[in-house]
Amino acid sequence: MSEVKRLTGDEMRFLERFLPPGARSPESGRGALLSGANMAKDEKLPFVTLTYAQSLDGMVAFAPGQRTTISGPATKSMTHFLRYQYDAILVGAGTAVADDPALNCRYPGATLDDQPRPVVVDPNLRFRLADSKMHQLAKEHKGKGPWIITRPKTLDSPMDRSCEIIDWTDRMPEVNDNAVSDGSIFWRSILQALKHKGINSVMIEGGASVIKDLLRLPELIDTIIITMAPTFIGQGGVSIAPRRPPSAEENPSSLGDRSYHQFGKDIVVAGKPYSSRAPLHPSR
Amino acid sequence: MSEVKRLTGDEMRFLERFLPPGARSPESGRGALLSGANMAKDEKLPFVTLTYAQSLDGMVAFAPGQRTTISGPATKSMTHFLRYQYDAILVGAGTAVADDPALNCRYPGATLDDQPRPVVVDPNLRFRLADSKMHQLAKEHKGKGPWIITRPKTLDSPMDRSCEIIDWTDRMPEVNDNAVSDGSIFWRSILQALKHKGINSVMIEGGASVIKDLLRLPELIDTIIITMAPTFIGQGGVSIAPRRPPSAEENPSSLGDRSYHQFGKDIVVAGKPYSSRAPLHPSR
Ligand SMILES: NC(=O)c1ccc[n+]([C@@H]2O[C@H](COP(=O)([O-])OP(=O)(O)OC[C@H]3O[C@@H](n4cnc5c(N)ncnc54)[C@H](OP(=O)(O)O)[C@@H]3O)[C@@H](O)[C@H]2O)c1
Ligand SMILES: NC(=O)c1ccc[n+]([C@@H]2O[C@H](COP(=O)([O-])OP(=O)(O)OC[C@H]3O[C@@H](n4cnc5c(N)ncnc54)[C@H](OP(=O)(O)O)[C@@H]3O)[C@@H](O)[C@H]2O)c1
Repeated sequence: MSEVKRLTGDEMRFLERFLPPGARSPESGRGALLSGANMAKDEKLPFVTLTYAQSLDGMVAFAPGQRTTISGPATKSMTHFLRYQYDAILVGAGTAVADDPALNCRYPGATLDDQPRPVVVDPNLRFRLADSKMHQLAKEHKGKGPWIITRPKTLDSPMDRSCEIIDWTDRMPEVNDNAVSDGSIFWRSILQALKHKGINSVMIEGGASVIKDLLRLPELIDTIIITMAPTFIGQGGVSIAPRRPPSAEENPSSLGDRSYHQFGKDIVVAGKPYSSRAPLHPSR
Repeated sequence: MSEVKRLTGDEMRFLERFLPPGARSPESGRGALLSGANMAKDEKLPFVTLTYAQSLDGMVAFAPGQRTTISGPATKSMTHFLRYQYDAILVGAGTAVADDPALNCRYPGATLDDQPRPVVVDPNLRFRLADSKMHQLAKEHKGKGPWIITRPKTLDSPMDRSCEIIDWTDRMPEVNDNAVSDGSIFWRSILQALKHKGINSVMIEGGASVIKDLLRLPELIDTIIITMAPTFIGQGGVSIAPRRPPSAEENPSSLGDRSYHQFGKDIVVAGKPYSSRAPLHPSR
């Protein structure tokens, strides 16, 4: 496992504009604010950053459910710097099951207080929390106890009574049946529930279907930070190409106020999502 | 139509390492060489650069056969600087038909002598050359007469005798029946035929199926220059994700010696392709 290193001043200045309000620089002591941090675009929601690593052909994994290292070691340090800045880190059930991610912050100097809250969106309680790295880290006081976002009915079924999840789960009463359609919970409701529980900033780390859904909802996302590795994964890989909005000539989203920075062999693309008309039939 | 501007010194220095031998700087007078230019990896072939513009989700068009402006005006100047450097510019029949591209070089100071040879790979003579921009530009002495790469048999059919294409077509005897499988011509044969006809460098500009095929053949390609626009085109767009090599754990290609440069709102990714093992099941 490669080491997590402090970011350089240049790297921090590049990321600064895409961080939540109150973003801190661990180097300059607890509580020291970075300048230029943003407000959430919707004050009823936490500040939301979507982040992931992809290949040039828009893939986030070599095959469905397969954990794949796409980015190089330099962006690992970036991930842990970012985790230091958010109240919570969220992933979908698919990623929790496939990757068993730690989701804690191992940036040099990070204490238990600095740890983000791990959150898993898991309507069917597929993720075996008791056997997980998150659970283990919380027991060892190296991470906070995870929250599982599920539908209210899920925990009432007989199967779930025997489920070890209850220890850590906060049932998020705000995520009620009105917030559910077709078995999937509206993202606005998920984010509102987190805000009601005191989460003012959340970084969403994947996986593929969470990314695809959120790229269609630029109104909920404040910033996007994508690590692009200079490789092609090819057909059969897991693509993040989102479904299109109903209006046929609109792009799912574009990045405004974008900025680029090279981390090792990778390029990091950051920006603020908005929906835009597709460019069509233009001259060259 | 936006104006073609001279590149800055920084922009030229970024591109330099990815250009064919003998690359010229129009600013410093005809014949002045840029330093650091490369040799073709295979001396029996021309120096080959693959270039195209894509969205973050790996799409080169909004829908099949639909001409789509993906990159911003700053990369247009880059395209014309690049066209100045190559003996030929090649596209597939699909792009010729869908986009009716000019394929000439409009970089400030470019003369007729500086024009690259337009080449279309069109085994079924689908492209109506007589109605095309390439044909018009050649008549006006603003571009060279295009070459059409086709199968030897194509021109013997009665239909083709009435075809206006013959004026411009050089029949490329090197592309013979041995070079054809399933109706598609081996890329090595296409490139060898060009070399035999005096083409020492070729820039391949698309479209989608040409790019997909060539990303699987890194041994034929010297450099790749991709313009990445900060937008998502979404499902239904035309993806460049290549098919995978037969060996299941290999990536189609990766970029070595890669470099990045921002052009306006876009990021340009350049590198030298090689095939690499897929990264699998690693730790985070
Ligand atoms: N490259 C990267 O940066 C990166 C990052 C993370 C993960 N990944 C990869 O992505 C893959 C996993 O992706 P995935 O698409 O399988 O899983 P995922 O996106 O992590 O999780 C999807 C699942 O989460 C639940 N879910 C998500 N949104 C929901 C909503 N709004 N309401 C209710 N439930 C919701 C659903 O669970 P149910 O199915 O139970 O309904 C859904 O099927 C793995 O291969 C992983 O390695 C890559
Ligand atoms: N974003 C960009 O940078 C960019 C650049 C160029 C084009 N495009 C877009 O790409 C789309 C066109 O792509 P496309 O996939 O339809 O067409 P294409 O790749 O331009 O041309 C494909 C056709 O060329 C012929 N061909 C290619 N390789 C061949 C080989 N080895 N042997 C024999 N024939 C060969 C075949 O013609 P037959 O079908 O007759 O056999 C094949 O179907 C358009 O939407 C265009 O706007 C985008």
